[in-house]
Amino acid sequence: AHSFSQVLVRVQDLIPEKADQLIWLRARVHTSRAKGKQCFLVLRQQQFNLQALVAVGDRASKQMVKFAANITKESIVDVEAFVRTVEQKIESCSQQDVELHIERIFVISQAEPRLPLQLEDAVRPDGDGEEEGRATVNQDTKLDNRVIDLRTTTSQAIFRLQSGVCQLFRDTLTEKGFVEIQTPKIISAASEGGANVFTVSYFKTSAYLAQSPQLYKQMCICGDFEKVFCVGPVFRAEDSNTHRHLTEFVGLDIEMAFSYHYHEVIDSITDTMVRIFKGLRDNFQTEIQTVNKQFPSEPFKFLEPTLRLEYTEAVAMLHEAGVEMGDEEDLSTPNEKLLGRLVKEKYDTDFYVLDKYPLAVRPFYTMPDPNNPKYSNSYDMFMRGEEILSGAQRVHDAQLLTDRANHHQIDLEKIKAYIDSFRYGAPPHGGGGIGLERVCMLYLGLHNIRQTSMFPRDPKRLTP
Amino acid sequence: AHSFSQVLVRVQDLIPEKADQLIWLRARVHTSRAKGKQCFLVLRQQQFNLQALVAVGDRASKQMVKFAANITKESIVDVEAFVRTVEQKIESCSQQDVELHIERIFVISQAEPRLPLQLEDAVRPDGDGEEEGRATVNQDTKLDNRVIDLRTTTSQAIFRLQSGVCQLFRDTLTEKGFVEIQTPKIISAASEGGANVFTVSYFKTSAYLAQSPQLYKQMCICGDFEKVFCVGPVFRAEDSNTHRHLTEFVGLDIEMAFSYHYHEVIDSITDTMVRIFKGLRDNFQTEIQTVNKQFPSEPFKFLEPTLRLEYTEAVAMLHEAGVEMGDEEDLSTPNEKLLGRLVKEKYDTDFYVLDKYPLAVRPFYTMPDPNNPKYSNSYDMFMRGEEILSGAQRVHDAQLLTDRANHHQIDLEKIKAYIDSFRYGAPPHGGGGIGLERVCMLYLGLHNIRQTSMFPRDPKRLTP
Repeated sequence: AHSFSQVLVRVQDLIPEKADQLIWLRARVHTSRAKGKQCFLVLRQQQFNLQALVAVGDRASKQMVKFAANITKESIVDVEAFVRTVEQKIESCSQQDVELHIERIFVISQAEPRLPLQLEDAVRPDGDGEEEGRATVNQDTKLDNRVIDLRTTTSQAIFRLQSGVCQLFRDTLTEKGFVEIQTPKIISAASEGGANVFTVSYFKTSAYLAQSPQLYKQMCICGDFEKVFCVGPVFRAEDSNTHRHLTEFVGLDIEMAFSYHYHEVIDSITDTMVRIFKGLRDNFQTEIQTVNKQFPSEPFKFLEPTLRLEYTEAVAMLHEAGVEMGDEEDLSTPNEKLLGRLVKEKYDTDFYVLDKYPLAVRPFYTMPDPNNPKYSNSYDMFMRGEEILSGAQRVHDAQLLTDRANHHQIDLEKIKAYIDSFRYGAPPHGGGGIGLERVCMLYLGLHNIRQTSMFPRDPKRLTP
Repeated sequence: AHSFSQVLVRVQDLIPEKADQLIWLRARVHTSRAKGKQCFLVLRQQQFNLQALVAVGDRASKQMVKFAANITKESIVDVEAFVRTVEQKIESCSQQDVELHIERIFVISQAEPRLPLQLEDAVRPDGDGEEEGRATVNQDTKLDNRVIDLRTTTSQAIFRLQSGVCQLFRDTLTEKGFVEIQTPKIISAASEGGANVFTVSYFKTSAYLAQSPQLYKQMCICGDFEKVFCVGPVFRAEDSNTHRHLTEFVGLDIEMAFSYHYHEVIDSITDTMVRIFKGLRDNFQTEIQTVNKQFPSEPFKFLEPTLRLEYTEAVAMLHEAGVEMGDEEDLSTPNEKLLGRLVKEKYDTDFYVLDKYPLAVRPFYTMPDPNNPKYSNSYDMFMRGEEILSGAQRVHDAQLLTDRANHHQIDLEKIKAYIDSFRYGAPPHGGGGIGLERVCMLYLGLHNIRQTSMFPRDPKRLTP
């Protein structure tokens, strides 16, 4: 009975100009409500929906109305229907000026009658539920039933925006002459010293999951690719159950040779971030506003050029705000956040670079500041007061690297291959790694990184 | 002595129009040769190089010539030099019409005097070395010293082209309305049944490395993203030591809901492949020719529209060529290759789709052919006679999926989460996964997949 030569229309294309056309549509049954001799359906495709009507008459029997009324929510249906304009706007739908008068309806895929969560509950702002006695859905229930949760307008918006971040990152760097590389995730030695690394059984031996692509990016620089980037999973076996830690996340990584000063690297990275922020602001406004409906936040602010503070300036700001900390002490998470607020007040930006970290708090491969041995040519970048990138000029001289590793009491045997990479001529270079999920979370002003990871992994969650 | 305000020029920009300009350049010392009161250097940046000269005279002392002559190969130097046109073309360099007359030279990074391999040996075609008594470099030596091997013109070309494949893949799909997704690599249950999977220690429990992102792609389809793609590592614990197997490779994955027929999926994938082939042909001709110099091959041929053969036709062609095999038997690797040759002879294409595989040889989630229960709505795609993609329409009905799993004697408990994904309405959908390294290897007519993986992983290689 169902002809296979029909073009299926899109819900968002159903506008008054299509009035009185007979169309075919495939959509989910968002809601269905029988009312006397009629059945009102709301049909949904992604974030778009419209009202549809089956009414007893020439083309529909009582049985058909009953059939339509019994279709379970979230089922997928094909309908043949006339597009009709409506006299009164349908405020609850994205298509407010038309409705469908259904001639025929087929169930393509039937949903089980009991859903583990209701979409309308899953997008309700936290406060609203409590105040008005309506349900919200807790995060574990959402994640346990991600297949349904992904259908919400909020999830659709978050992950479309995430897709946009990746595209903007790559397009900007490609335009700047960077080459995309693919780095291995299974490695023979723990890349950053051995702590917090997952072990893999590898045939008759053991291997590890890469904690960062840094060594491989650096090998590509030593291999004359000059400017490289990669996008891929990064693994951290940290037993951190916080709002901002995942055991597996997506790293947006950059590494580049520079001519004279590592600030060339900082400039390339901040340029890229600014391009991402502008691209999101200009091309993802619908998504941002959709997320804001459920999770209100201030628009993300940034400066051009990007604000760059030195570590000593940051410590002075914190001192002035009453914080007691040493000049060469690392920033604690609360101080990081406080600093973010102080910077926002003083400079009105949600994005800034903190440059010249104390050498003592950075990894052994960090280039010391040639002018002051207590500091280093290294930097972090922050969004809304939280770290999204850590980076540095790397030591590119095998002898200095050996000295630095000795100073850190690192077993030279274990990093021999790494050090040897610099024995055959290596240009001065630097880079950094950005956490994709953090960028999305902080740009959107969300408060939990599990909201911006489709299938998050933490010490307690391995499914779905 | 070294001023930090100079602009460094690029070797490829040094052309006769720049004659008599005083420039600064950073480059590697490709070769260096003293000859009386002069020292001839070849300076290199990536695939570009030019001749440079230090001669005793007004600006250079005898000591400076000696210093230049002693700079080790592969060291990185900064030179201040005049660009001069030459009377006779310098055939051995990419910049044939100019040379540099060096005024000052600084060593930025010194290479150790003994290199583990010579770049000129590493790019010599296999035959040439043997015939003329010159060295070639075996693959393990190249891979063990990848930092140096990546500097060769061949490696630079291969990995730039690989970067292009990824970009073309994503750009084409983004244009077609696909959304990029990020899928987890650490999973709680083996995605394809448990064989050939790497085990990871995960805090107090065990986990696995994903053998494909398929389940997650399908969950995104059930989550209403409609068309998704992802690019990321795929892990296979197969103890296969062949020219075309890696234990970790990069998967280019596609999944999409379709309207009426799974051939819509095939068409989207072949469209994408054709766009990649055209993009490489049109934008990467220099890279292709560079690789061809060392590894000669015929240009890659493809048809528009892409040739689609049914499995039964392929079996008939093989029967006709004298092969004995059953109608429902899977293709052996030699038969796959033979079929590739037969197809090339008959249709003059290096790329084709083989459609409607016997149901018995495909995984349990493959949709049976509704018209013939012995066959299935599944397909492989081939380049130069080797498989690069395997795909299918997936069963999207929980009950049918349960029946098919039972038929394959799969433990339902282990795939419960997978089957449950389809209980809340799932559209008809299909997809496939492409191996990036295979696409690059076969497009370029190479014979070993380790050539198109920067840091290959196989049962015997975990380093560098």
